[in-house]
Amino acid sequence: MKNSVLLIALLVLCNARIIAQQNINSRIPEYNIPYELPSVENIKDILNRIRVYYEESSNQSIVDSKTGEPITDFKSFNINAVPSKGFSSEWSYTHGVVLSAFEYIDDVLGDDAFFSNNVKFYDYVVESLPYFQKNKAKIHKEKIGGWGRILNFHALDDCGSISAAMIKTYLKNKNSDYLLLINQTDAHISKNQYRLNDGTLARNRPQYQSVWADDMYMSVPFLINMGVLTQDHKYFDDAVKQVLQMASYLYVEKEELFDHGWNVTSGDYDPRFFWGRANGWVLMSMAEVLSILPENYKGRAEILHLYRSMVRSLANLQDGSGFWYNLLDKNNSYTETSCTAMFTFAIAKGINEGWISHVYGPVALTGWNATQTRVQENGAVDGTCEGTTFAHDNTYYYHRGKSIYATHGYGPVLYAGAEIIRLLQNDKIEIKPTKRNARNSTFHFLLKSEWPKN
Amino acid sequence: MKNSVLLIALLVLCNARIIAQQNINSRIPEYNIPYELPSVENIKDILNRIRVYYEESSNQSIVDSKTGEPITDFKSFNINAVPSKGFSSEWSYTHGVVLSAFEYIDDVLGDDAFFSNNVKFYDYVVESLPYFQKNKAKIHKEKIGGWGRILNFHALDDCGSISAAMIKTYLKNKNSDYLLLINQTDAHISKNQYRLNDGTLARNRPQYQSVWADDMYMSVPFLINMGVLTQDHKYFDDAVKQVLQMASYLYVEKEELFDHGWNVTSGDYDPRFFWGRANGWVLMSMAEVLSILPENYKGRAEILHLYRSMVRSLANLQDGSGFWYNLLDKNNSYTETSCTAMFTFAIAKGINEGWISHVYGPVALTGWNATQTRVQENGAVDGTCEGTTFAHDNTYYYHRGKSIYATHGYGPVLYAGAEIIRLLQNDKIEIKPTKRNARNSTFHFLLKSEWPKN
Amino acid sequence: MKNSVLLIALLVLCNARIIAQQNINSRIPEYNIPYELPSVENIKDILNRIRVYYEESSNQSIVDSKTGEPITDFKSFNINAVPSKGFSSEWSYTHGVVLSAFEYIDDVLGDDAFFSNNVKFYDYVVESLPYFQKNKAKIHKEKIGGWGRILNFHALDDCGSISAAMIKTYLKNKNSDYLLLINQTDAHISKNQYRLNDGTLARNRPQYQSVWADDMYMSVPFLINMGVLTQDHKYFDDAVKQVLQMASYLYVEKEELFDHGWNVTSGDYDPRFFWGRANGWVLMSMAEVLSILPENYKGRAEILHLYRSMVRSLANLQDGSGFWYNLLDKNNSYTETSCTAMFTFAIAKGINEGWISHVYGPVALTGWNATQTRVQENGAVDGTCEGTTFAHDNTYYYHRGKSIYATHGYGPVLYAGAEIIRLLQNDKIEIKPTKRNARNSTFHFLLKSEWPKN
Repeated sequence: MKNSVLLIALLVLCNARIIAQQNINSRIPEYNIPYELPSVENIKDILNRIRVYYEESSNQSIVDSKTGEPITDFKSFNINAVPSKGFSSEWSYTHGVVLSAFEYIDDVLGDDAFFSNNVKFYDYVVESLPYFQKNKAKIHKEKIGGWGRILNFHALDDCGSISAAMIKTYLKNKNSDYLLLINQTDAHISKNQYRLNDGTLARNRPQYQSVWADDMYMSVPFLINMGVLTQDHKYFDDAVKQVLQMASYLYVEKEELFDHGWNVTSGDYDPRFFWGRANGWVLMSMAEVLSILPENYKGRAEILHLYRSMVRSLANLQDGSGFWYNLLDKNNSYTETSCTAMFTFAIAKGINEGWISHVYGPVALTGWNATQTRVQENGAVDGTCEGTTFAHDNTYYYHRGKSIYATHGYGPVLYAGAEIIRLLQNDKIEIKPTKRNARNSTFHFLLKSEWPKN
Repeated sequence: MKNSVLLIALLVLCNARIIAQQNINSRIPEYNIPYELPSVENIKDILNRIRVYYEESSNQSIVDSKTGEPITDFKSFNINAVPSKGFSSEWSYTHGVVLSAFEYIDDVLGDDAFFSNNVKFYDYVVESLPYFQKNKAKIHKEKIGGWGRILNFHALDDCGSISAAMIKTYLKNKNSDYLLLINQTDAHISKNQYRLNDGTLARNRPQYQSVWADDMYMSVPFLINMGVLTQDHKYFDDAVKQVLQMASYLYVEKEELFDHGWNVTSGDYDPRFFWGRANGWVLMSMAEVLSILPENYKGRAEILHLYRSMVRSLANLQDGSGFWYNLLDKNNSYTETSCTAMFTFAIAKGINEGWISHVYGPVALTGWNATQTRVQENGAVDGTCEGTTFAHDNTYYYHRGKSIYATHGYGPVLYAGAEIIRLLQNDKIEIKPTKRNARNSTFHFLLKSEWPKN
Repeated sequence: MKNSVLLIALLVLCNARIIAQQNINSRIPEYNIPYELPSVENIKDILNRIRVYYEESSNQSIVDSKTGEPITDFKSFNINAVPSKGFSSEWSYTHGVVLSAFEYIDDVLGDDAFFSNNVKFYDYVVESLPYFQKNKAKIHKEKIGGWGRILNFHALDDCGSISAAMIKTYLKNKNSDYLLLINQTDAHISKNQYRLNDGTLARNRPQYQSVWADDMYMSVPFLINMGVLTQDHKYFDDAVKQVLQMASYLYVEKEELFDHGWNVTSGDYDPRFFWGRANGWVLMSMAEVLSILPENYKGRAEILHLYRSMVRSLANLQDGSGFWYNLLDKNNSYTETSCTAMFTFAIAKGINEGWISHVYGPVALTGWNATQTRVQENGAVDGTCEGTTFAHDNTYYYHRGKSIYATHGYGPVLYAGAEIIRLLQNDKIEIKPTKRNARNSTFHFLLKSEWPKN
């Protein structure tokens, strides 16, 4: 009896493979991920699910780590005081991407549900922070996680991304209490952070004098927004400089991609690892610079060229599923969520802004169709590569863990969804399905203006 | 009882995998497709099976689409009159490839069974066409399929390939009734078909001002044969111009391959999709030009360079099975019949004509060994990618359906077989097997003339 | 009853797959091959196991092939006299690599157990050889295998590699009886071996006027060591010339790899097959030249550039397991032992000698971790590609058999292990694991001297 049940189960498994084989010669395309045009409503639903997951991850309060009870009396210092656990209570660069995305969604959808989280979080930070600052000498920094870094920035990871989102929030709500941390970040990035002799932002980690592609996102969005905030062009100049100089170390023309990192002793013969997310950070940063920098600003054309050539290369490297691989040039490495979402955003953005041809539409569209399969029912974003050091072997990159706990995926997916909505609503473009045997096979994106009027 | 049967079935499946694993360390090469030198007789048999399948696909008559009965009285117009169904009754570019191949096989084998189909088909067309032409106003063009296009050519697909074969047939049987359609095709290609300002043949489909690699085959074999027919060099000049100008838009030097298509707004940053068949059309076209164009004709050297560099690239990109992939640079896309056959033909042709080194012999040979596995017992050619638009996403190309109903595979397989026969019979070349443990592992193709005489 | 057992077996199989799937989203990297820092003791154990396997492969005596009995009376000629069977009795280029490795291990470990095999073997050869030489007219060369080739060298394979090891052995034990064969080899390589007009060592096999990448190892280590032995710079000059001229035919800048071979009629349009072992021979040869050639010797800088660019390319092409593929640029060809071991050696060597940055450490380390999985308990080295001709089709290279009987893997694995020991003991370098969740994920190799002193 039992045997029969098991047998049936086994046969179902085996059958699945046999059916798959029969389809080898199917006349009708069999997409693993349905090749459909998503509706704006469906994307909004996904964005909201992620938002709710985010909101529920923490109640954003200061608590006693022993008892779990909220601390309400901030007069005397409680040695066990910590920010409550959870993503939405973190001072982290991945949280910065989410808050930047919320601010962007606010512009796209005009739905305050997203941006209100920005105000709530930054208010919480500036209100709670003095409690820790005053008692700086007493606390164990590692106990309060990312908040410990606020007390004394040591790295771009500690401030660039989350303070970029803070500027964007400030520009909308003008809460002047934010300026202290914004200026503290500026002091770190513009003055204290380690740089190579030529001014390129760098790290002494893991190698002496290393340039990380990731650091473009950890600095450039802050700098470019600082330019908007202050109207001081020195920030624009530094943003442009960082993009172009990092490219001079990391951009590999043959592949039209960025090497994850470089260090001084490897010089001209640096080994190359085209890690997906590093290239995502780069393309996101370029998109932010291109959005903000005036049309003829010095260096903008070079950045535009880099952006365009990366997009050309990425279109070719996309997997048949719509995903990109964790190592972009290795189709036997796994398909990764955060880089797919970042490329989807940056490519859709480029079409909407006119930086690249509308023909890239299907690349963004299939990128989104793939990305959204990674958003779970409860809004958790799965399949994102864990935090990753600048390493020097494929073995490492091939095997990075991936999970819903790698928070690097959340902001990118929010950004991607918002930009795909803009693409679907882009009235310069007509999206035409190609039907064959009653099933769609691709979508042609057409630029209305180039066709003669009927 | 039943359980046992099922279990045995399951164990057979599992066993197959275990046996496969044991062979990982086999000392003797285990070829999935036997690595053998085919016999001329075996290839002839394959060519004849395809021919019979083709012949049986239609009786080539005008019938009443309601009753299925042949129409014999052409005096009064029957509103239901249609050409009989089936491949060999079609006016289509894929049929054009078959008829060109039949004419080529006629030269190679001297067996009239193939070429007689050319005479039969074109006679059938020129005899039946007036019936439709006279009643042009009454008929519904879509009902008569490709024949409807004859009444008014709109695209290169409507005429270039099948009229190229018509010229070749005319040059042998001198049936002057063919000239009307040949001239009508010339008028379309030389005068009416849309071109870019620089004279490159182009389409406004799917994008405004698109250049398709496929269009090389849809025009160049016609033009070059029109040059033979008329002895007017303007046709040679236009053929050369189309090859070189299309290359200027589509040839990617880094890959030594042709991008499927280009459109005016994507410009220098056109995304690249190296679709197998598109490159097949290109290489077939070049082979036809190189065959016909006088040795020192202006532009021939540039075409020869393109041909040689593509062949060099293709040799590297061939799968271990002998096939090529539907996306040539993606080894996780499926292996495709029509492009494999076209490359097999064009490479074997290049060896036989002396355009490339004889060392490419095994590339053509393994290409053929793979190709012939796709010819079914009844002559149907399987595994060919369906009709494919110029799209802008890998997802589309990875998932194209494939089947025996994609008629793009038939002509190429016929051509490939014929050229492999010429290669086997090429008396400038000695083919030496390398045996090890009584099983062959490769064949060395040697150029007899370069070895010192014994 | 039986059914249950079978079912359990089946379920175990199926379960394995299901568990594997669950790990797709594992937060902790799951390495197929543990990503560990090997201990010197562990590597020594592996080297000794291989040595014992080698030693037990033959008793190194002259025997009667009919009776198997040792021949002790060398006065009268026994027509059935043959060298005893087994790897350690062979006169072959693969044996040469082992003996070179033994001599190298002697330097690294100071353990005579390895080098004593060199003395034993070469003494055996020079003592037994006169017996065959005197009776040259009577014997059937093929019966005595590689020894038959000693009587009259015909190819670089017959002498270059094994005589290079003979020089190295001579330089330590100064047995002047070795000089006869060393000089005979010199006569072959420097005077008799076929060369192209420009002096590049070449073959008329399988193609007329072929250059094989393998021939770099079959000549250059001999030439460069001949320079050491004689202090005559003409040998250094020829070694440099061979490396650079072979590169001019075979090095493909786009890939930063060597094509397996080239022949005169394929010229500029030679098809390219980036066979693993051929590139291994090249990199091993370069390492030997760079080790010996004085710092500013003419041509050394060009060789160093080639070496460095190949290493850069190889780092990128390494599989996630640490292996390289039999066709280096084809990730669906099998992972191969001998090339992996050679790259592991040459890259670790480059770090130890300062030719490349220390950041390549993890490439060598993961290469070794992969390689050592192929050493069986009894010391046999598995997974090595069989002897391989210079072929012209991927089909051939994809399907080469592999086994413990392909002796090309033994020497490279010995070399690799020795060099990894040197890397682990390199006191200029600190190796830092990166732990996460109590499990290592990569190792950072740091150059102590570039960090500021604390």
